[in-house]
Amino acid sequence: MAIHQESLRDHACLIVHGPDRPGIVAAVAALLTRNEGNIVSLDQYSDDANGGAYFQRVVFHRPGLTGAIPAIEADLTKTLGEFGLEWTLTDQSIPKRMAILASTSDHCLLELLWRHRRGELPVTIPMVISNHTNTAEDVRSFGIPFFHVPSQGADKSAAESEIMKLLIGNVDFVVLARYMQILSPDFLDGIGVPVINIHHSFLPAFIGAAPYRKAKERGVKLIGATSHYVTTDLDEGPIIEQDVARVTHAHSAPDLQARGAYVERAVLSRAVQWHAEDRVIRHGNHTIVF
Amino acid sequence: MAIHQESLRDHACLIVHGPDRPGIVAAVAALLTRNEGNIVSLDQYSDDANGGAYFQRVVFHRPGLTGAIPAIEADLTKTLGEFGLEWTLTDQSIPKRMAILASTSDHCLLELLWRHRRGELPVTIPMVISNHTNTAEDVRSFGIPFFHVPSQGADKSAAESEIMKLLIGNVDFVVLARYMQILSPDFLDGIGVPVINIHHSFLPAFIGAAPYRKAKERGVKLIGATSHYVTTDLDEGPIIEQDVARVTHAHSAPDLQARGAYVERAVLSRAVQWHAEDRVIRHGNHTIVF
Amino acid sequence: MAIHQESLRDHACLIVHGPDRPGIVAAVAALLTRNEGNIVSLDQYSDDANGGAYFQRVVFHRPGLTGAIPAIEADLTKTLGEFGLEWTLTDQSIPKRMAILASTSDHCLLELLWRHRRGELPVTIPMVISNHTNTAEDVRSFGIPFFHVPSQGADKSAAESEIMKLLIGNVDFVVLARYMQILSPDFLDGIGVPVINIHHSFLPAFIGAAPYRKAKERGVKLIGATSHYVTTDLDEGPIIEQDVARVTHAHSAPDLQARGAYVERAVLSRAVQWHAEDRVIRHGNHTIVF
Amino acid sequence: MAIHQESLRDHACLIVHGPDRPGIVAAVAALLTRNEGNIVSLDQYSDDANGGAYFQRVVFHRPGLTGAIPAIEADLTKTLGEFGLEWTLTDQSIPKRMAILASTSDHCLLELLWRHRRGELPVTIPMVISNHTNTAEDVRSFGIPFFHVPSQGADKSAAESEIMKLLIGNVDFVVLARYMQILSPDFLDGIGVPVINIHHSFLPAFIGAAPYRKAKERGVKLIGATSHYVTTDLDEGPIIEQDVARVTHAHSAPDLQARGAYVERAVLSRAVQWHAEDRVIRHGNHTIVF
Repeated sequence: MAIHQESLRDHACLIVHGPDRPGIVAAVAALLTRNEGNIVSLDQYSDDANGGAYFQRVVFHRPGLTGAIPAIEADLTKTLGEFGLEWTLTDQSIPKRMAILASTSDHCLLELLWRHRRGELPVTIPMVISNHTNTAEDVRSFGIPFFHVPSQGADKSAAESEIMKLLIGNVDFVVLARYMQILSPDFLDGIGVPVINIHHSFLPAFIGAAPYRKAKERGVKLIGATSHYVTTDLDEGPIIEQDVARVTHAHSAPDLQARGAYVERAVLSRAVQWHAEDRVIRHGNHTIVF
Repeated sequence: MAIHQESLRDHACLIVHGPDRPGIVAAVAALLTRNEGNIVSLDQYSDDANGGAYFQRVVFHRPGLTGAIPAIEADLTKTLGEFGLEWTLTDQSIPKRMAILASTSDHCLLELLWRHRRGELPVTIPMVISNHTNTAEDVRSFGIPFFHVPSQGADKSAAESEIMKLLIGNVDFVVLARYMQILSPDFLDGIGVPVINIHHSFLPAFIGAAPYRKAKERGVKLIGATSHYVTTDLDEGPIIEQDVARVTHAHSAPDLQARGAYVERAVLSRAVQWHAEDRVIRHGNHTIVF
Repeated sequence: MAIHQESLRDHACLIVHGPDRPGIVAAVAALLTRNEGNIVSLDQYSDDANGGAYFQRVVFHRPGLTGAIPAIEADLTKTLGEFGLEWTLTDQSIPKRMAILASTSDHCLLELLWRHRRGELPVTIPMVISNHTNTAEDVRSFGIPFFHVPSQGADKSAAESEIMKLLIGNVDFVVLARYMQILSPDFLDGIGVPVINIHHSFLPAFIGAAPYRKAKERGVKLIGATSHYVTTDLDEGPIIEQDVARVTHAHSAPDLQARGAYVERAVLSRAVQWHAEDRVIRHGNHTIVF
Repeated sequence: MAIHQESLRDHACLIVHGPDRPGIVAAVAALLTRNEGNIVSLDQYSDDANGGAYFQRVVFHRPGLTGAIPAIEADLTKTLGEFGLEWTLTDQSIPKRMAILASTSDHCLLELLWRHRRGELPVTIPMVISNHTNTAEDVRSFGIPFFHVPSQGADKSAAESEIMKLLIGNVDFVVLARYMQILSPDFLDGIGVPVINIHHSFLPAFIGAAPYRKAKERGVKLIGATSHYVTTDLDEGPIIEQDVARVTHAHSAPDLQARGAYVERAVLSRAVQWHAEDRVIRHGNHTIVF
């Protein structure tokens, strides 16, 4: 649903995650009530009623939220600690800071910038970083800073260091909008924030490079795209969203690529929006999307 | 999700519905906790945080449910009465009793019987009633009683009376599986249980008779089907589910009808399953589907 | 499929349309063979084998096409005249000239400009005309001329005259990209080229204004968009393309509008591409889309 | 589109396949004209205008078809032989004979039997063979012979021999409707007719056994099914049709299997219908579907 920052004043999102036990919903609801929070929406999921994992997302309204947060946090630590549960509390009126890494392709990048301008992504975009310069003018026309960090040769460590210097402390998550460089484990570890990628196939089909060419060779009747969190296992991270489009024998590999671009931008945009709205919980190599 | 009756022992579904006020979630959760119920799943929706309507569906597990129901109901009456809320409590291990009314078309009828045999519909089917006899043998091969109630001439009141005699007291809801007779307000009022219909168009387009012919005449590129609760306003009742299929200029009106049959049976099956699982709440002329 | 103008040199598209009779395919194929044309693709449809209408689209390659066109046209006039068939012949390497009319909404407008820049729409865009100025900077950043023609008050004839002066002789078709003014019969008659509109509902449902509000009121589970040729019957012209998106009770009318925008831009883009590629044949109030 | 055998009297389907050269369409059209055939529909595709492969499907009407076939075939041999093209000519009024092999699952099997009874599959079904007996009664209630051929132990050759004896000479193609035995190369070679399989995943994802369990483990957001021609490379044969359904974190592996069953039966039914209507041309490991 469209997000309007002003309407989110005094709204917080509480994510609860951990071993399932009877009474969690009641404990959380009672905690919010005694802290004067009014539940606006609540989603809950248990992966196994007999001793599995518990997941909950609650959005609540609390007049004077900013001042009340320390007390709420103290209560959460105490109350949910007894259940052995992890939690995060975020002020919904504070947009997450999102950096975008891109290469020459502009379809995913421009789609994110444009949805942001329409007010549909609850983020700020402090920077776009690209290893190419072709999208600089477009990015800056949206009022977004553009940084060019070339990435040539086999050793990517210098480029990664430069990108890390730009990112660290300045962003809450990073989006790879068809960024065509593989990020090193050191980089992923170093930046310390989630990284969301868009892969141009219906994973786990066609892992690796040139998925549209492989799709043409296999003769599939649907092509797809997958957005996932980046881990050190290439193309193996937790999947956030996927979608497909129908193709026929008459489509060449470049045709598949052209059609696929529209699936990619839609899938990545939904994944980014859900992440920005705190709707996605990682659990092992899976996601719970509320 | 597939329903296995045996696994639903000691599970209850509580539907809460009424004016929104702070504290409802907490009150319901506390009530279930003090009645030794463990929440298995919880869905909640408010149509307007500032004074709108509140909707909640909770499935909970309570060992020894049958014996505990009177006390839980007394607590609900007292606790939710203070909020001005309506509620229903159903034992999930008791399947609803569903009658099917049909005419000559068999696609929706057989789909429901077959899904029921696969254990995917948490219902019993005490009877199928048709104004034709062509499906009798198929119905009885599923072990379901078949009753033939002809409906000829302009006066349908005798047929409706006969159907009412079969239904009243014996069923919890009625499904019109392409039943080609319009039911009178007296009938709908008299049977006193919900009636679910499948309309062979994407309502509100092509209201009334011969929607596939009208769709062909208008040259639409998608055809659809709509399942809704029956009210005295023909084709105007609350919509439960809809879906569409792509068509082209090359499809004749009979082609549309043939393709549409597959949309109809899927849409009706989903609507019936959701109703049987207490996932659908009626509110004015709308539905909330959890 | 993606269109690359350079690869279309010496390619022509022949559309044939009229009463069906035996031998048309053979006659057209023989004509192309004797004019040294090699068939690249052929689509054909008869709406009734016994005396219905015949529709054919043939793309053929003919080295030295430009010089050969007069002879081919003379042959078509003679050969197809004997069958009572209408035909049009277009040089595929000459893109159609497309004007866009817009108002304040930018989603359909920018999508067309952006697809054009990617080389996916085989058109030139000599101008965008809007009755508002908010999109001027965006449009000009694509290198496309922008003209502001205000449309205030009840009498639209002065505005329409000004738009006609801009269009006539300069464009081959016009796209209404969420243009919020109703065009008069005089205007439609006067410009003498096809006009393509995008309507923000799944026609014929929710004809007229405020379809998303009406959709919310009716409680539909899918929303849609429809692209059609504009006729003097508002929202009743021949449908080119339609699509839908799933919604729930939780979506407000503004939410429907936000989601619908993505359906609108996709549906309009496909309709425009197919028209530009000569894939759409009008027949009465229907379209044949090859 | 729905097929009505009686309306196909005197209709033939000609498939042409081979190296592309200018003039094929004209040659085929002229051949049909001089043999008094009237083209009802024509589909054509070239995978590369410069020296690729050519594919054509023509349905034509020829009064007195049966008597005319020898002359048409002689003309095809001579005319298309000069182009180096392969062809097949089938009388559309003669339904193909289809055997179904099944195991315990009934969803694909019953769907095919039911669509056949509705007149939507232009086939006869001389037999259903299963390595289990649970579906025998259902199959026979459709008036179709049922044969039980158990398949126990490591050595399947006896079972395969028995199946071959039943099939050879009696069927034109074989459908594996969730038949849970791997067929040997000798068997596939020996029966000499096409074999169509349904695989319960979106190939090439989740090749091999237990795809729904693997899909759950990978955390995909869509599940799918794939119908393909069987080759000696397991799960690697030419794909005819694929489709998907949306799933969430809340679906267990059995839930995926239950939902997937509906995708499987739809995908297999479409593939079978297209094959039976001579719409599918195999080319290397791909299919062209007209």
